[in-house]
Amino acid sequence: MITQDADFTAALQHAIDSKTKPVGSLGRMEALAARIARIQGTLKPSAETCQLTIFAADHGMATAGVSSYPQDVTRQMVANFLSGGAAANVFARSLGADIRIVDSGVAGEAITHPNLVSRRIATGTANALDGPAMTEAEMGAAIATGRALGSEKTHDVACFGEMGIGNTSASSLVAAKLLSLPVEEITGRGTGLDDAGLARKRQLLSAAAARTEARLSARTALMEYGGFEIAMMAGAMMGAAQAGTIVIVDGFIASVAALCARDLMPEAAGAFVYAHRSAEAGHARVLDALDAEPLLDLGMRLGEGTGALLAWPLVKAAAAMLREMASFDSAGVSGPA
Amino acid sequence: MITQDADFTAALQHAIDSKTKPVGSLGRMEALAARIARIQGTLKPSAETCQLTIFAADHGMATAGVSSYPQDVTRQMVANFLSGGAAANVFARSLGADIRIVDSGVAGEAITHPNLVSRRIATGTANALDGPAMTEAEMGAAIATGRALGSEKTHDVACFGEMGIGNTSASSLVAAKLLSLPVEEITGRGTGLDDAGLARKRQLLSAAAARTEARLSARTALMEYGGFEIAMMAGAMMGAAQAGTIVIVDGFIASVAALCARDLMPEAAGAFVYAHRSAEAGHARVLDALDAEPLLDLGMRLGEGTGALLAWPLVKAAAAMLREMASFDSAGVSGPA
Repeated sequence: MITQDADFTAALQHAIDSKTKPVGSLGRMEALAARIARIQGTLKPSAETCQLTIFAADHGMATAGVSSYPQDVTRQMVANFLSGGAAANVFARSLGADIRIVDSGVAGEAITHPNLVSRRIATGTANALDGPAMTEAEMGAAIATGRALGSEKTHDVACFGEMGIGNTSASSLVAAKLLSLPVEEITGRGTGLDDAGLARKRQLLSAAAARTEARLSARTALMEYGGFEIAMMAGAMMGAAQAGTIVIVDGFIASVAALCARDLMPEAAGAFVYAHRSAEAGHARVLDALDAEPLLDLGMRLGEGTGALLAWPLVKAAAAMLREMASFDSAGVSGPA
Repeated sequence: MITQDADFTAALQHAIDSKTKPVGSLGRMEALAARIARIQGTLKPSAETCQLTIFAADHGMATAGVSSYPQDVTRQMVANFLSGGAAANVFARSLGADIRIVDSGVAGEAITHPNLVSRRIATGTANALDGPAMTEAEMGAAIATGRALGSEKTHDVACFGEMGIGNTSASSLVAAKLLSLPVEEITGRGTGLDDAGLARKRQLLSAAAARTEARLSARTALMEYGGFEIAMMAGAMMGAAQAGTIVIVDGFIASVAALCARDLMPEAAGAFVYAHRSAEAGHARVLDALDAEPLLDLGMRLGEGTGALLAWPLVKAAAAMLREMASFDSAGVSGPA
């Protein structure tokens, strides 16, 4: 899936170092270009087209007070995505990315809209504070559905975002189980809990974590605590990586999906580019586990794939640098004395 | 030049907080949107069009061993810019920015090319290690020429870049004199000096700094140590700020030009957005003096306006967020409980 051939690696470094610039002077853009080249298996990579897929689903936990927003907001935000008014829509339009919205399991009746991709696994998960969030069959269906969506090779770059009231809680629990960490260490304010709200969230998640063993596989963690949007995103990341698509990993929740994807398909991680260091507590631990250093650090904590979209122009420019920039020889520029 | 009216400020904060996202969840993108709104004096700002202007000039100092590259490289890189092969060209094309190249005073014969903007002050500066880099008349002409170029209001956003072998040395000296700091504290490896080269550069710059008083005005510092590209860029930043154009300040050398522009026209600084924290030692001191927190930190140290170009999509998206994103009311989304 990722080109690791020694000749290719040497040719790649030579190509980057021959460009008309002091060696190393484009910093992390050079490493980014190299990663993209390896994903596409070419010294002339391209990241000109980009699609953001937003997976939306509801969480049984949301009714138990883990979020400051009511569960209805998931459905309302899907309507907002479909009418083009959310931050993700605006960023996508502004930067020239395409966008598709997937109903992975929003509570209530099925949403009908010509632009909605309906892949409902169920009407939200069960309350993971009390028992498994989903059945094994639902978990398998969510991952497989995501994988099919991710493997449609329509764009050079795939960004994945999510919407689901309660999904920082679900993500904290899944990450804690994959990394065998106390969930409190990986629990933050989500959309904006105050101190009392955060204390309550920590208490609830701690009790939920105590239901199961300290370390779980990605499949079991997703079944016990996950959401349909998280499982579907993990599947989509695997599908996209396998198709040779560059995957830009957004913030906290997307990084947890990436952690699951890597657990399920280790080689998929070679296709991941990390976008943004989230202000959500816990992201740093997940990034460390992924050995990831995001490109941006803008204090954002919105989700929806907004961080991934903002990182795309860097990815695009890095690919263009390797593809189009002149070499010292071709431009007739002298090297250092 | 910058809207600071209390009613406008209140309306601006209300507009940002009414968007369909948790308050503050877009982090620094919110502050960036607010800055752009103030520059343009509207709650519906736009940063859709962008032009990079690269000022190129030579430095008498370059022949004294302050750089690892020969002086000819300035002229060779101008040719590379004109044929579209440099990093700045590639980034501009990839991201959709326009580009113009200004000969501010490259050594040797005048360069003739249909796309070159020729504003030659002289054939390079004098050697600032021994005496003033330019006359008072040259300094005045460079600033005025830059101001005229900057005030042409053709794009929403202006990025400024530079090319000039020896110009990190010139910038270190100018910054040291504006900030009354020992020049060694603000001297780095430039395009890539080794330890011995850096020690030599520090020694040379230290001797040059001893020629004049510890603190100088921007005009005197530019005259004694500056370059035509640095003075012209400072003028262009003033002209652009006065015209209501958003100015994206690139890396170390551009930040020194911004420091000069602010010294000459304090209100100009309100129009500045800082792009990238350079790997060049000394940039941190200059940024502190400007009270600036760049948007990006990618370990780059190339110049040419490359950092400014990479920051433009963030500026564009921030403006779009404020201009186009739905409010809780307009989208029918519930707020926090």
